[in-house]
Amino acid sequence: MTSLLPFDDIREMFRLMPQLDPVAEAAARARDLDLTKPPGALGDLESMAMFVAGWQGRARPSFERPQIVVFAGNHGVVERGVSPYPASVTRAMMQNFSAGGAAINQICGSYGLGLKVFELALDLPTRDIASAAAMDEKEAAATFAFGMEAIAGGADVLGLGEMGIGNTTIAAAIYTALYGGKAADWVGRGTGVDDAGLQRKIAAVEAALALHKDHLRDPLEIMRRLGGREIAAMAGAIMAARLERVPVVLDGYVVCAAAALLHAVDATALDHCLAGHVSAEGAHARVLARLGKKPLLDFGMRLGEGSGAALAMGIMKAAIACHNDMATFSEAGVANKS
Amino acid sequence: MTSLLPFDDIREMFRLMPQLDPVAEAAARARDLDLTKPPGALGDLESMAMFVAGWQGRARPSFERPQIVVFAGNHGVVERGVSPYPASVTRAMMQNFSAGGAAINQICGSYGLGLKVFELALDLPTRDIASAAAMDEKEAAATFAFGMEAIAGGADVLGLGEMGIGNTTIAAAIYTALYGGKAADWVGRGTGVDDAGLQRKIAAVEAALALHKDHLRDPLEIMRRLGGREIAAMAGAIMAARLERVPVVLDGYVVCAAAALLHAVDATALDHCLAGHVSAEGAHARVLARLGKKPLLDFGMRLGEGSGAALAMGIMKAAIACHNDMATFSEAGVANKS
Repeated sequence: MTSLLPFDDIREMFRLMPQLDPVAEAAARARDLDLTKPPGALGDLESMAMFVAGWQGRARPSFERPQIVVFAGNHGVVERGVSPYPASVTRAMMQNFSAGGAAINQICGSYGLGLKVFELALDLPTRDIASAAAMDEKEAAATFAFGMEAIAGGADVLGLGEMGIGNTTIAAAIYTALYGGKAADWVGRGTGVDDAGLQRKIAAVEAALALHKDHLRDPLEIMRRLGGREIAAMAGAIMAARLERVPVVLDGYVVCAAAALLHAVDATALDHCLAGHVSAEGAHARVLARLGKKPLLDFGMRLGEGSGAALAMGIMKAAIACHNDMATFSEAGVANKS
Repeated sequence: MTSLLPFDDIREMFRLMPQLDPVAEAAARARDLDLTKPPGALGDLESMAMFVAGWQGRARPSFERPQIVVFAGNHGVVERGVSPYPASVTRAMMQNFSAGGAAINQICGSYGLGLKVFELALDLPTRDIASAAAMDEKEAAATFAFGMEAIAGGADVLGLGEMGIGNTTIAAAIYTALYGGKAADWVGRGTGVDDAGLQRKIAAVEAALALHKDHLRDPLEIMRRLGGREIAAMAGAIMAARLERVPVVLDGYVVCAAAALLHAVDATALDHCLAGHVSAEGAHARVLARLGKKPLLDFGMRLGEGSGAALAMGIMKAAIACHNDMATFSEAGVANKS
């Protein structure tokens, strides 16, 4: 019997996930101890280099093709007044990305990171989650598969970002479905809604949860009912990276909603992911705690676009340069610890 | 009457310190509000760009000539067994810096930061602070003046670093003299001394404090009695940067000892300085609290060399690129907040 359900292919992927290569990680650890510095003196930079080596399965971690991929989607729920910006801003920002005028362009340029933007049917917003399922299963599975193309051009480290007016409402609905509690526990101000807008966001999430309440046990079902296209695509990108042993740097509140769906299916599904930063969007710190991730940076940012992931990849660039290019004690003729 | 005391010239500099330019800072703030992002969404990156603009006195902050300067000195107190590394490592690391093999070379290379290393009479260690004053007043003042050359070649942002076997003992003595308490409150493991070495560090600081106890009211006197050459030079570099309106990024435990001396003379003397990171060297977090500085990064590092300052300047590079090169709402044709 062959599978007839589109999600079955995704479920199978969880069974194929590779693990960190302990031999490569140990080789990186051995090299680290021979570099011209006191052991441990580079702190998190050292563990980051070993993490990348272990996941890439290379004794020397590679940072030759670091890639930021930004996924963009539009959301029917925007009609409920959940954002101070109109949905047209999502497409306008695509042009801003193309012209090099957005924050993520500058951050990628500062560190030599590749930047790709994937538009996901911006003229056909997903259905309003408070009145219908956002996507059907076939559409959600196809978007997940499309997201897997994030690393198709080749990448040795992947950073994820998103753009989509309304998508902090979508993320809040996913967190409420996954983690329980009240909608108000998970909803934040996003791009900066006022008090009335915040109440509309909470009401939209409450309505969505009430509508779909009997179908929220399966994280993939949460993805298609409460998600957006960029959420499904980012979940696919994280999975594709895992299957290809590409370490992933997560961004903030919205990217982590995609990650949280995978984590809810299998708690080891994010073992190849680092948390780039903790967002100022209120609930993000609690989400990271649920995912068991310690954020590298805490700058009070809440922009999206992969901005926090890209800054963290700037740190990773230096960490890997130190690991690969520092002299050893014997090479430098420096006396080691007595 | 002309001055006969070498420190009088330094004291005069405190009276000449310029302040942040509120007009330049306000211009940067106005531009920030017009960039294609929700107001405040870049968090600390925004305030960093405004800070640099304000101190440089430019509406657009400049990051064309970022400069890391590392000062290196040797210390008589090393004879007391306060470090697991021999004093010869200080000079050996100079060769490692020159050959491009140290951590700071890789970090500067990752971000395009200039790197200069100033050797301070490495073959003539300062006198053992537990048995004499490290320097006489003329020598300390000359070293301070030499440190002022840090920005002589031109720099728009200055990051400070140091190298010197034994200098965490020197820094601990300075903190104990400035802030009181027991030597053990301020002494840490530096490059990684064992328990016996830690006790020798504490004993050395206690002996130094006992010897000089009647002469520790004046921070400049603390600098010459308990300091090292790299401490005096970094204090000069921070002052020179202030006089020339160059923002400074501080590094960790040892760099902050130089900063703390200036701060003790005048609590506004570090207004042009940012704390790049908080070091794993135990007392550094308490030092930063005394200086009123919130560290940008917390990676558990304790290397010195300016490594934490250079990583923070990597973040600053992106922050200033965002500020200067992002499109405004009108340029990008993006609808602003409704």
